[in-house]
Amino acid sequence: MTDPHGASRETGLTLDPKYDAAGLVTAVVTDRVSGDVLMVAYMNAEALAATQASGEAHFWSRSRGRLWKKGETSGNVLQVAELRVDCDQDAIWVIADAAGPACHTGARSCFYRRIEDGALVPAE
Amino acid sequence: MTDPHGASRETGLTLDPKYDAAGLVTAVVTDRVSGDVLMVAYMNAEALAATQASGEAHFWSRSRGRLWKKGETSGNVLQVAELRVDCDQDAIWVIADAAGPACHTGARSCFYRRIEDGALVPAE
Repeated sequence: MTDPHGASRETGLTLDPKYDAAGLVTAVVTDRVSGDVLMVAYMNAEALAATQASGEAHFWSRSRGRLWKKGETSGNVLQVAELRVDCDQDAIWVIADAAGPACHTGARSCFYRRIEDGALVPAE
Repeated sequence: MTDPHGASRETGLTLDPKYDAAGLVTAVVTDRVSGDVLMVAYMNAEALAATQASGEAHFWSRSRGRLWKKGETSGNVLQVAELRVDCDQDAIWVIADAAGPACHTGARSCFYRRIEDGALVPAE
């Protein structure tokens, strides 16, 4: 393996995120109480640092091209209970307490539809 | 909005995944019993179809450039209990029963390390 990060990324205790070509890692937010997946978003180094420093989830908005604190407008912030990183450090798991609906549609979770027989069914 | 899929993608009951430039959506797998996030991977249309048809999680391997059924070698298949899609249909939530460790490292979950004070701490 020519990647100098390779082995230590998986086995080590150094935070060394594997950002993609756009400088991002995937962030999955789950609800601390229900365990439900609330949303999937992206973090760059700045968003990850802001999340760690503030204890509130920050992301990188690909559509707006800027850092955003979840809830900065709606008030529905995500208070971080725990942050985890996966084996190859290209995904972050955010366990959070949600102050309100996590989805911009007003749904508690962005995953408000089940896939059944190739179609969608309301899940909540 | 010029995207003809835009509104119906969020409010409709038609499965219409928003694949990225590489033809992929993000897939988050959680354990049906514990609720823990087990892994994050990617699905193309073929992987999503195979997952729906078989009831076992299939992904697209970006490193190997091919379809793979999780557990095809290790036996640690992920039996799908429920599939959900998010608001803009670019992420899939797979709720699954895991036949064994989900991570290639042998860990139950790929997220076996917590981020604390900028470093990593074993989580399990």
